[in-house]
Amino acid sequence: MRDVAIIGVGITKFGELWGKSLRDIFVESALRAIDNCGVKKIEAMYVGNFSGGLFVGQEHLGSLLADYLGYAPIPAIRVEAACAAGALALKQAFLDVASGFSDIVLAGGVEKMTDIDTGEATYGLAAAGDREYEAFQGVTFPGLYALIARRHMYEYGTTREQLAKVAVKNHKNGAKNPYAQFPFEVTIEQVLNSTVIADPLRLLDCSPISDGAASVVLCPAERAKEFTNKPVKIIGVGHATDTIALADRENITTSKATVEAGKQAYKMAGVRPEDIDVAEVHDCFTIAEICAMEDLGFVKKGEGGKAVEEGLTEIGGKIPINPSGGLKSKGHPVGATGIAQVVEVVTQLRGEAGERQVRNAKIGLTHNLGGSGGSVIVHILEAI
Amino acid sequence: MRDVAIIGVGITKFGELWGKSLRDIFVESALRAIDNCGVKKIEAMYVGNFSGGLFVGQEHLGSLLADYLGYAPIPAIRVEAACAAGALALKQAFLDVASGFSDIVLAGGVEKMTDIDTGEATYGLAAAGDREYEAFQGVTFPGLYALIARRHMYEYGTTREQLAKVAVKNHKNGAKNPYAQFPFEVTIEQVLNSTVIADPLRLLDCSPISDGAASVVLCPAERAKEFTNKPVKIIGVGHATDTIALADRENITTSKATVEAGKQAYKMAGVRPEDIDVAEVHDCFTIAEICAMEDLGFVKKGEGGKAVEEGLTEIGGKIPINPSGGLKSKGHPVGATGIAQVVEVVTQLRGEAGERQVRNAKIGLTHNLGGSGGSVIVHILEAI
Repeated sequence: MRDVAIIGVGITKFGELWGKSLRDIFVESALRAIDNCGVKKIEAMYVGNFSGGLFVGQEHLGSLLADYLGYAPIPAIRVEAACAAGALALKQAFLDVASGFSDIVLAGGVEKMTDIDTGEATYGLAAAGDREYEAFQGVTFPGLYALIARRHMYEYGTTREQLAKVAVKNHKNGAKNPYAQFPFEVTIEQVLNSTVIADPLRLLDCSPISDGAASVVLCPAERAKEFTNKPVKIIGVGHATDTIALADRENITTSKATVEAGKQAYKMAGVRPEDIDVAEVHDCFTIAEICAMEDLGFVKKGEGGKAVEEGLTEIGGKIPINPSGGLKSKGHPVGATGIAQVVEVVTQLRGEAGERQVRNAKIGLTHNLGGSGGSVIVHILEAI
Repeated sequence: MRDVAIIGVGITKFGELWGKSLRDIFVESALRAIDNCGVKKIEAMYVGNFSGGLFVGQEHLGSLLADYLGYAPIPAIRVEAACAAGALALKQAFLDVASGFSDIVLAGGVEKMTDIDTGEATYGLAAAGDREYEAFQGVTFPGLYALIARRHMYEYGTTREQLAKVAVKNHKNGAKNPYAQFPFEVTIEQVLNSTVIADPLRLLDCSPISDGAASVVLCPAERAKEFTNKPVKIIGVGHATDTIALADRENITTSKATVEAGKQAYKMAGVRPEDIDVAEVHDCFTIAEICAMEDLGFVKKGEGGKAVEEGLTEIGGKIPINPSGGLKSKGHPVGATGIAQVVEVVTQLRGEAGERQVRNAKIGLTHNLGGSGGSVIVHILEAI
């Protein structure tokens, strides 16, 4: 297996992109990633997408997007792992290059979620959980994460204010991100007074419904300098599954798939949690960021809330988390999220993150989680 | 890259499986494939599925099926390429083993299509084409293939009777396949007198709406004999895309993606079309089998209809095609089809196909096509 580097990144504005269709936004992000490194030829492409079927009635996205990008007849592979579809595209593209099967490969993610009414978006999102044993019984994702939050508060004394602080911190970061859907700050009071969605979670604890796309270009690490003077190497990859239904788990405050995928990635990279300078983790709800910090080993189990309260996860803190604004402020076009996290970490490792730059970031981590933790993919990246 | 072998195969009955859900049938086929080779451990799994979202409201199939198979936390990857999703699962699993990333990998395909009413099935299937520029304008798949058939008749003098002969031959084969959805023979008259679906195609020119699943187990070729005395090596892999919309092609009677994927697979395998002893090709409609025979080089362009009429593609003919009964008689649970083709070819190369055995079959080919040809994957297999 060869070393693999990321040489180009591209992302669209996240938000309600009424004037653009799924194919438009994917191509926009892909062309930006290609321009970013100047490659002349793409040999294969991977597309992460959660549910083009339920959101816009369109599957067969490999063919569609290779076609609209002007790259047919190259092989194009659509992959899906619910909200972790983006990171899955990167992992499979990594394998394609690492194996020597292909040299220059594009990995992108896309979701177009706002072209349907709200009721259908909730129906669509529920396809990431266990339709027969969760959604048909009335449990949707805010409900599942509310159960996790309530249990975390009971077990570890995590407070309602600590949850709110995750949203406040992420909006503070997102306010500095031109691609964010909600690039403005919020206060603890605004979070605590926002509409109840599923007790104890309120509107400002939840990531939004979004449109958006993101892409990266990979090549063998030994060729990276042909295309960029700031390549970033993929040094760790981890991928694990868990029960799809939350009720089937021994402990709902720990994501076993996160622990396992993290372990694989740290081992492959030869680094420990304390070596990570910057991380983008899957904050689909505020509680999810707290659990991820703990399960990835950045803090001890149960101490995530306190760490957020003390500012450890702010830009400039001990372990900066979600400098992009996270899913909360940047937006969460499901299939694009995993690649958008990688775009942010690469931007940080290149020292190009402007006002939200984490100083001296050399090693970064991305954590992308599907459903309530049924699939998790972790990547560790290093500036070379 | 290491050589890769198929060591176990499993398939469910295809049909209207009212008593079983998507997860049930996938697990049934997977357990059969695992039993078939006796592996103790699976390290990763690939799931080909076209639209769990539109057909049963369920995505996140990697997690769901690893969970129900009892294999979580192994990495599980759902891939999609419309009707070529199954073969895509095999190709990506091949890469996983060939790269040395994993040793024992399961590749399966599944579709559960009968739990919704017919109107929705047509809507669902149209997601394999260009929703915005084909389906929204009123063109569904029978319509697209009717255009191809009409043009093929005009260009090459292909007759209505020759199209019917494809269905007659495939039903004759399928009548000998216990897993087939329609295991009975039909006559030319029955085909010619069946209901018009999209002129010139009639009901018995079309593959059905089906439920079903199929799985295979892969390992490095050098380890294959640990698990089976009849391993089959994957000697050729080809994967190509084309425009998703039929109207965007220069020539609608040739699938450029089939030609390109075939070329790649033949080159990798070091064989020519005349070296193929048995083939399973994508006969979603009778005309599709004729085009595939031509595009894969089994006969010259335009001579497919004549070859069928003369019996060259029957079991015992010069180039036996679709001994399983094909999509037409065996059924077409979209995501399962590509793997089911491989199950049949492996069964043939092992000499275990009973009444439908092709004599002395040593090298076989599978051709799995998505949509109207937007994605095509070809595999060449050899008994070792």
